[in-house]
Amino acid sequence: NSQLKIFSLNSNNPLAQEIAQEMGVELGKSSVKHFSDGEVQISIEESIRGCDVFIVQSTSAPVNEHLMELLIMVDAVKRASARTVNVVMPYYGYARQDRKAKAREPITAKLVANLLETAGATRVIVLDLHAPQIQGFFDILIDHLMAVPLLSDYFKSKGIPEEEIVVVSPDHGGVTRARKMAERLKAPIAIIDKRRPKPNVAEVMNIVGNVDGKVAILIDDIIDTAGTITIGADALRAAGAKEVYACCSHPVLSGPAIERIENSSIKELVVTNTIQLAEDKKSPKITELSVAKLMADAISRVYENKSVSTLFD
Amino acid sequence: NSQLKIFSLNSNNPLAQEIAQEMGVELGKSSVKHFSDGEVQISIEESIRGCDVFIVQSTSAPVNEHLMELLIMVDAVKRASARTVNVVMPYYGYARQDRKAKAREPITAKLVANLLETAGATRVIVLDLHAPQIQGFFDILIDHLMAVPLLSDYFKSKGIPEEEIVVVSPDHGGVTRARKMAERLKAPIAIIDKRRPKPNVAEVMNIVGNVDGKVAILIDDIIDTAGTITIGADALRAAGAKEVYACCSHPVLSGPAIERIENSSIKELVVTNTIQLAEDKKSPKITELSVAKLMADAISRVYENKSVSTLFD
Ligand SMILES: Nc1ncnc2c1ncn2[C@@H]1O[C@H](COP(=O)(O)O)[C@@H](O)[C@H]1O
Ligand SMILES: Nc1ncnc2c1ncn2[C@@H]1O[C@H](COP(=O)(O)O)[C@@H](O)[C@H]1O
Repeated sequence: NSQLKIFSLNSNNPLAQEIAQEMGVELGKSSVKHFSDGEVQISIEESIRGCDVFIVQSTSAPVNEHLMELLIMVDAVKRASARTVNVVMPYYGYARQDRKAKAREPITAKLVANLLETAGATRVIVLDLHAPQIQGFFDILIDHLMAVPLLSDYFKSKGIPEEEIVVVSPDHGGVTRARKMAERLKAPIAIIDKRRPKPNVAEVMNIVGNVDGKVAILIDDIIDTAGTITIGADALRAAGAKEVYACCSHPVLSGPAIERIENSSIKELVVTNTIQLAEDKKSPKITELSVAKLMADAISRVYENKSVSTLFD
Repeated sequence: NSQLKIFSLNSNNPLAQEIAQEMGVELGKSSVKHFSDGEVQISIEESIRGCDVFIVQSTSAPVNEHLMELLIMVDAVKRASARTVNVVMPYYGYARQDRKAKAREPITAKLVANLLETAGATRVIVLDLHAPQIQGFFDILIDHLMAVPLLSDYFKSKGIPEEEIVVVSPDHGGVTRARKMAERLKAPIAIIDKRRPKPNVAEVMNIVGNVDGKVAILIDDIIDTAGTITIGADALRAAGAKEVYACCSHPVLSGPAIERIENSSIKELVVTNTIQLAEDKKSPKITELSVAKLMADAISRVYENKSVSTLFD
């Protein structure tokens, strides 16, 4: 059998370390630096000939820097005669640009898929894509993990009486995700029916479903500027919810996000570590759960050629 | 005939403006901004259906930002039904990573070529590639311009007596370029025979050719940290050159470059505007020549399906 090697790039080294630890392996030796003019300088410092290589990199901010690091690493791994080049992207940047919302816009999520294939990726492991359709942007194999079990287990462990919980989707696009969590928590769902006037600005309309006297758990895939989620939380409180929790897979948390969350009626925001939280984005209101075990299991199963989807059964 | 449209991205807007002015057209309307999380947001704000589109972008620092802007714009232009998508890259970043100098290195110059093709570029116009072999990295058409005529004409206009000039290549790789300039100036050449211990560090060995009592003109394609060129200038002075000029196509000028140039025995450094000089990189020693007319002529000839190489005859 060919050998497994895991390499980390610069976007989320702590997660890569944790994944390697879960698997009982050391991270592969490589150097990812910059030349004086800012160009990425990569070299792989151990033989990977014939190996199954997994490269861990989230394309979180600075997204272009992290994406180019990844593409250049894939090129280097391919040219070093690896048997397979597997890209592990806990967070897939540019996923929201997945369609032409207006004329003459790019479809950057598809461009990124093509760039990865062109560089030489042979397989991709992702988690909670903004739209599951992005799987179809790839001609190579893609494994799509989900954080709902992890998030649900955390809320179960809080001991909130089952009959008090309502899982809330902050928009129509997220209902499937909310439904999955609701099933795990044996709870009903509600939906916030909102209109968004422009990107990064959110406006709440009304709530479909009963939240009065309930503990509401808002779930989204990405929390970016936190406009949607904090206004949603206020709307839930106004509609009678006695407590509002929020959770998401990917804490982008750009611009005013932290301030908004801290000043909001959200009691606790539960996120995963697909995106490494910068020091100035940590907050006593934010709880971080690790996807390391999930990613490690997925890598093992891909390596052993076993089904990954069974991880969620 | 289909219509010509020229768009500028963010790396070198003044050059794009100048090119458009040379050609007597307006730049196409587009918006290149960032979302709150730093992802590039592009939209093209006029119809380009059936047009021959030229996108002007140097992949100078911040290179990854500028390259991703370019790839996303190419995607948007392609999807907006342009007839041809022509990429005008006065400076081609990552050109120095054009081979595996050590085992397990990427070949990023080739990766960039593949990425441009994958995004949808149908033709590329470049100027003074670090290695002319990079032309062969493309399967699409590529036009390779050169700045030697522009630089030579400037030195001619200075009125230095022809018999006093010697054109000097700072290394063996640049001899062909120096020879081209020498022919235009009817001057002999000399070569600096150097060893470079590691990237961005230069060390001079000795000078092949006669420079004693001469006005030496050093010519290179890229001046980055300016180590090679300033040490070369000192060596030329030590070998008896009475004055040392330097010139290059691409003023990368990273790190200590400006300080080194100002403290060196270089009398004047002549560069082109393929890379826009940041305010803190301007110096009384540096003269900037514009490639706008050259690029405009090349664009016109490509658009009219005429030979571009005749621009240098
Ligand atoms: N990084 C981003 N930040 C904010 N909005 C974005 C971003 N990328 C794409 N969009 C926009 O968000 C919309 C898609 O969001 P959604 O409706 O949630 O799928 C599209 O109209 C995109 O133009
Ligand atoms: N941006 C850069 N800055 C400095 N050196 C580089 C850069 N990109 C590549 N190189 C190195 O420069 C060498 C090629 O330079 P040259 O010998 O002048 O063709 C290669 O060994 C590369 O590893």
